[in-house]
Amino acid sequence: MNNTGKGQSFRTGTVDMTHGGGGRAMAVLIKDLFYRHLKNPVLDQAHDAAVFDIPPGRLVISTDAHVVSPLFFPGGDIGSLSVHGTLNDVAMAGAQPVSLTASFILEEGFPLADLERIVMSMAQASSQAGVPVVSGDTKVVEKGKGDGVFITTTGVGVLPEGVAISPGAAQAGQVVLLSGPIGDHGVAILSKRENLEFETEIRSDSAALHGLVENMISAVPDISVLRDPTRGGLATALNEIAHASGVGFVLQEKEIPVRPDVRAACELLGLDPLYVANEGKLICICEAADATRLLDIAHAHPLGREAARIGEVVEDGDRMVVMQTDFGGARVVDWLSGEQLPRIC
Amino acid sequence: MNNTGKGQSFRTGTVDMTHGGGGRAMAVLIKDLFYRHLKNPVLDQAHDAAVFDIPPGRLVISTDAHVVSPLFFPGGDIGSLSVHGTLNDVAMAGAQPVSLTASFILEEGFPLADLERIVMSMAQASSQAGVPVVSGDTKVVEKGKGDGVFITTTGVGVLPEGVAISPGAAQAGQVVLLSGPIGDHGVAILSKRENLEFETEIRSDSAALHGLVENMISAVPDISVLRDPTRGGLATALNEIAHASGVGFVLQEKEIPVRPDVRAACELLGLDPLYVANEGKLICICEAADATRLLDIAHAHPLGREAARIGEVVEDGDRMVVMQTDFGGARVVDWLSGEQLPRIC
Repeated sequence: MNNTGKGQSFRTGTVDMTHGGGGRAMAVLIKDLFYRHLKNPVLDQAHDAAVFDIPPGRLVISTDAHVVSPLFFPGGDIGSLSVHGTLNDVAMAGAQPVSLTASFILEEGFPLADLERIVMSMAQASSQAGVPVVSGDTKVVEKGKGDGVFITTTGVGVLPEGVAISPGAAQAGQVVLLSGPIGDHGVAILSKRENLEFETEIRSDSAALHGLVENMISAVPDISVLRDPTRGGLATALNEIAHASGVGFVLQEKEIPVRPDVRAACELLGLDPLYVANEGKLICICEAADATRLLDIAHAHPLGREAARIGEVVEDGDRMVVMQTDFGGARVVDWLSGEQLPRIC
Repeated sequence: MNNTGKGQSFRTGTVDMTHGGGGRAMAVLIKDLFYRHLKNPVLDQAHDAAVFDIPPGRLVISTDAHVVSPLFFPGGDIGSLSVHGTLNDVAMAGAQPVSLTASFILEEGFPLADLERIVMSMAQASSQAGVPVVSGDTKVVEKGKGDGVFITTTGVGVLPEGVAISPGAAQAGQVVLLSGPIGDHGVAILSKRENLEFETEIRSDSAALHGLVENMISAVPDISVLRDPTRGGLATALNEIAHASGVGFVLQEKEIPVRPDVRAACELLGLDPLYVANEGKLICICEAADATRLLDIAHAHPLGREAARIGEVVEDGDRMVVMQTDFGGARVVDWLSGEQLPRIC
């Protein structure tokens, strides 16, 4: 790649070791690809660090490495996913995200056109979410020492006064809300990975949830727990909350929304939707008296239209998650002990 | 790995895909390795996001992926390096770092004992720097899709009122200070990589510079530019500043400190020390009238004992970095155009 032929290079070129060497090739890549698409006033400062004002409040920070395979999947790609995933982690603390950073680990030989597509998708997700990417970093590793591209994003947000959402705050008698059907992201990834064809394409639910969270917290500032059921799915998220809060859960299977095509795909793939990753859903644990109000708010938001009350928090020294099944029985929804879906996010 | 045999597993075990799957194996790894060594009140909240108060001021954030090879080298390892590198980026904006996040991409089969050694080194560097790791993430990729471990750290800091340090702020007539001898880090890495033996072991200079920066800024708040000459070395950092500020530089070769063993190794390896990475040095550009005071402050700090005034900022529409050589001539210190030292940080 050189200064004169960059357009050509981005169509046909590949990442080489010079793109990570700290010299001119890296400077051109950063300027003509990252800065061009992710343009914003803070990034344009071109420091190694970004400087910006934040509104008053406690600070929230979260980081996530993204190693999803394949890089492109129905409903998104590693670029949009790396924005949504980290914004959601910030939002699940009850905070409104204000900025993102992004670090790229590129494998030698990776097509620059694919990289540009990923950066453009990241820019679009960032723009839609209203949260700029203010600082970044690029490293290159030799062919066979990486897998195309890995992206770590870190999000910073500000927590409004009075909000104290925590995985350890669930109490017996409270209820569990879920913002929509589960399993879409994991099934979309796995279908693509295994080259499975279904009648309708199953798309990832990857989306940024902080707008929905803002509406919910404005109405009910004392929500106890918010959690996005990503890796390990709804089952793992609830087990983590049960563990942190010292409570149990009783879920109603018939209330847990799963799209019919996702359910069918899970049966085919031998997966339990409760353990399949989501990237645009949230669990909310709140007082029973607030449930209807919060569901009304969720139903009015594009990302919460199918929100449902799926169970309740109970006293349980053993911190078990139990599900009342459609057939009138009950089963324990345990931690996932082995591998289910690697590289799902 | 299981709950009962963790001590044994950390001595003899390796990373497997379940450590990234979101289930129990991952929870145990996070609790018994990451949380145990990096323990601090914010991390103990066990959110996906960390929540903490910060002092008033503008926020500074910086992120860096670390892919250094080999993972362990004289004077440090990827764990300590990933702490120092990001703290330094925050400090070079003139800010004092307050917290770090860390995301790990682990390759299947990587020895858990090595991972523990890296996390312990990270914990020590974080503790010595007085900046806690408040949030993290772990992903696992299949054998052959990574290279042991990659670590992305993100640092957050607070910028004191009145400080406006920027790579674009250098002005003709100002002077260039350098905090100590150059090339140690790059030569230490390359010596280890190439299995070279020298009479004395050359150690990386990897260190956290925010303490030195704090002392310098307290004395001279209107320093114009701070920059750590990492990838691409002193030459690249000065070219970037020249470009951002629209100025030129004239350096005095005889004033630029290089350890004799580093100089000898560079000759053997065919490297120019000006282009070799450092991880514990800083460039400071300031008014000539402040130079002596800043050098005195640097000399009184363990990381600035060999600080020197190495050149000056000049008017130059072509933004060139020129060096007056020991022999009375002059040469242009250009951008590095190709690959020199990949995976140096």
